[in-house]
Amino acid sequence: MAATASKTPSSLMLRNTSRKQSFLKPEPISVTLTAIRSTKPISISCSATAASATQIQDRPPFQNEQQDRVFNFAPGPATLPENVLLNAQSELYIWRGSGMSVMEMSHRGKDFLSIIRKAEADLRALLKIPENYAVLFLQGGATSQFAAVPLNLCQVDDTVDYVVTGSWGDKAFKEAQKYCKPKLIWSGKSEKYVNIPAFEGLVQSPDAKYLHICTNETIHGVEFKNYPVPKNPNGVLVADMSSNFCSKPVDVSKFGVIYAGAQKNVGPSGVTIVIIRKDLIGNAQDITPVMFDYKIHAENNSLYNTPPCYGIYMCGLVFEDLLEQGGLEEVEKKNKKKAELLYNAIDESKGFYRCPVEKSVRSLMNVPFTLEKSELEAEFIKEAAKEKMVQLKGHRSVGGMRASIYNAMPLAGVEKLVSFMKDFQARHA
Amino acid sequence: MAATASKTPSSLMLRNTSRKQSFLKPEPISVTLTAIRSTKPISISCSATAASATQIQDRPPFQNEQQDRVFNFAPGPATLPENVLLNAQSELYIWRGSGMSVMEMSHRGKDFLSIIRKAEADLRALLKIPENYAVLFLQGGATSQFAAVPLNLCQVDDTVDYVVTGSWGDKAFKEAQKYCKPKLIWSGKSEKYVNIPAFEGLVQSPDAKYLHICTNETIHGVEFKNYPVPKNPNGVLVADMSSNFCSKPVDVSKFGVIYAGAQKNVGPSGVTIVIIRKDLIGNAQDITPVMFDYKIHAENNSLYNTPPCYGIYMCGLVFEDLLEQGGLEEVEKKNKKKAELLYNAIDESKGFYRCPVEKSVRSLMNVPFTLEKSELEAEFIKEAAKEKMVQLKGHRSVGGMRASIYNAMPLAGVEKLVSFMKDFQARHA
Repeated sequence: MAATASKTPSSLMLRNTSRKQSFLKPEPISVTLTAIRSTKPISISCSATAASATQIQDRPPFQNEQQDRVFNFAPGPATLPENVLLNAQSELYIWRGSGMSVMEMSHRGKDFLSIIRKAEADLRALLKIPENYAVLFLQGGATSQFAAVPLNLCQVDDTVDYVVTGSWGDKAFKEAQKYCKPKLIWSGKSEKYVNIPAFEGLVQSPDAKYLHICTNETIHGVEFKNYPVPKNPNGVLVADMSSNFCSKPVDVSKFGVIYAGAQKNVGPSGVTIVIIRKDLIGNAQDITPVMFDYKIHAENNSLYNTPPCYGIYMCGLVFEDLLEQGGLEEVEKKNKKKAELLYNAIDESKGFYRCPVEKSVRSLMNVPFTLEKSELEAEFIKEAAKEKMVQLKGHRSVGGMRASIYNAMPLAGVEKLVSFMKDFQARHA
Repeated sequence: MAATASKTPSSLMLRNTSRKQSFLKPEPISVTLTAIRSTKPISISCSATAASATQIQDRPPFQNEQQDRVFNFAPGPATLPENVLLNAQSELYIWRGSGMSVMEMSHRGKDFLSIIRKAEADLRALLKIPENYAVLFLQGGATSQFAAVPLNLCQVDDTVDYVVTGSWGDKAFKEAQKYCKPKLIWSGKSEKYVNIPAFEGLVQSPDAKYLHICTNETIHGVEFKNYPVPKNPNGVLVADMSSNFCSKPVDVSKFGVIYAGAQKNVGPSGVTIVIIRKDLIGNAQDITPVMFDYKIHAENNSLYNTPPCYGIYMCGLVFEDLLEQGGLEEVEKKNKKKAELLYNAIDESKGFYRCPVEKSVRSLMNVPFTLEKSELEAEFIKEAAKEKMVQLKGHRSVGGMRASIYNAMPLAGVEKLVSFMKDFQARHA
């Protein structure tokens, strides 16, 4: 029915002269109508209904207008799916007829319960989490889990094994020293964390309560492609999956505990997800803070105290989005395509760009690279930022560049980066 | 310049036929123009610019439209200021020219640093926090602080004193038993927590490292109006202020540590604020998890690991709003007025409504009350909800009703509740 302006000479061009959006309630909007073929604008007032029944205060203009989104390559907090952000924005003030924001909801009320239950159900569907695993929505980041894991899984004299393939694994190992006898059975530190050991060569402690790995090292860009099996038949594999959580399918049954900060692939910072085999719950050390006791949180469905409600809601929107994309098999395909594009650009640059990580364990999520002419790195980062590609600086402990290309980084972002890299090389080779 | 429709017979009435809002980028909007004096609508298409350069997906409609906000009397998470929510909504997708949401920002980038620094500066201004106090933005709620306080302030054989005026103080006391020798020097439990002891009658331990109080008991509605002084000249007063934080001026210098979950008066859940005298930092027990060590967080300006960025941003918006209201002196006046209105309605009901709390220590924040005819309580709550006043049910451990009237509860909300109470009484007396 609607005819476009270009096809209808008699139609009018409308331009919103106010930068303010029409919020919630009927409110007059000032509109300028310009008749085509006339240079004289006609101002009229129009409103959503004949009269504005309620006088409400000036509403802030939406920042969405006339502003471009950048491609954000930050390692976390990181870019989120655009449609998720827009959904969240649309219902921030009032959530689905509840009369309030999600941020204002009682965590024990039916609305929030529906949110957290759906988030858990969707996560269970995404990762095909078996029934005998509990899902906990906690706070405090992976750093809290560095203590919670040994506090819950062993007593002070127990031995546990750590394979350290980067800075995060190293932090986990050090924190565990307060609560048990962790053994460093392999470390990539002397080689600057660029590889992962062959599992058959690992000398595991026969009585280790668990074997700990970090499946993706955010800073060093090293990612496990498969997983070691604990030598102790009563031991379990524990994984910090913070930076590749939900980036690909994972066989949860191979793990005793999986934990992850949300702020890479699945939500904002402030939410930590723990997936734990239920029989491992309930043996926390006496000194365990109540907030670190998995039993307390499992028994209370993550509602022992007030959880980070809004963050959990955001994670729920992301889980929904990942399911709509076709689940983690599809998500992995996209991630592989993006990573391949970027690693190929590096490898085909004849040494202009270099990635130090051993090819077989390169991360699909975090791609560190350096310039042969390291004096150009600052220029690279500066020019990229001008082109609206930001947060490409490598971690201070590593230097160079790092492109984090989590689930929510669109292929277009990687394509733009690769195109920029080729152009930069052509200008500086 | 703008003429209204009613004054300009030749003008056109516009009605947006789509419930979708115009988001970010130029996008054609379907509009129905109805010429006044004509019954025949003319459909045309108008767009913000001549052509929509970028094809973008369908944007979700804003939930703000045609939905009423309720008055939310929940004890926390709780109602937030409307203007703060609207501001947050306006810039959720893109924050002030940054090209990204606050939820996507690196916590070490300049944009987020500006947010957290302003939040701290505004909080310091609000509470007039002296220079020799650190302000920490943490995670894990007051429940985490129940462990962190003894872990940081004393060794395992040290004595500390607890005055318990409600459930939260009791939880704090019990958690401390894991880390030191807490002494329960007063408890209101046998009287069902309706009062606060006279300070001169308290038998404090002469060597107590600290004296712990909960300044406002959310469940029982008991609030300290002034504060006891530790007997030990080297001891300090520690206060859980979760549910009356920033509701009135406080002389911070009287305290060694103040801590508060944000989700009552200053933000969403997931942020915990700790204000601590700097000389008390740095003596944590060896078993302290790194995430509970005040020294780590103070040295790293709350950025040791990824903080709950979006929650901190929301707190910052609330702090700004409280300053704009004239600071905590003005806020306290409003809170007193609201509480007085509600307590008067209860006291003047000739026993129809009853508040069990001793008058001198009644909370300005949480007002518990019962009905003489307790069989009417379910009906009261149901009818109130129909009138868009929700979350009035008392805590399961206390029963009856509870109206939480934090900073962000408008006077109109309390007026409406009081009017409803009188009406309900008239119908059921």
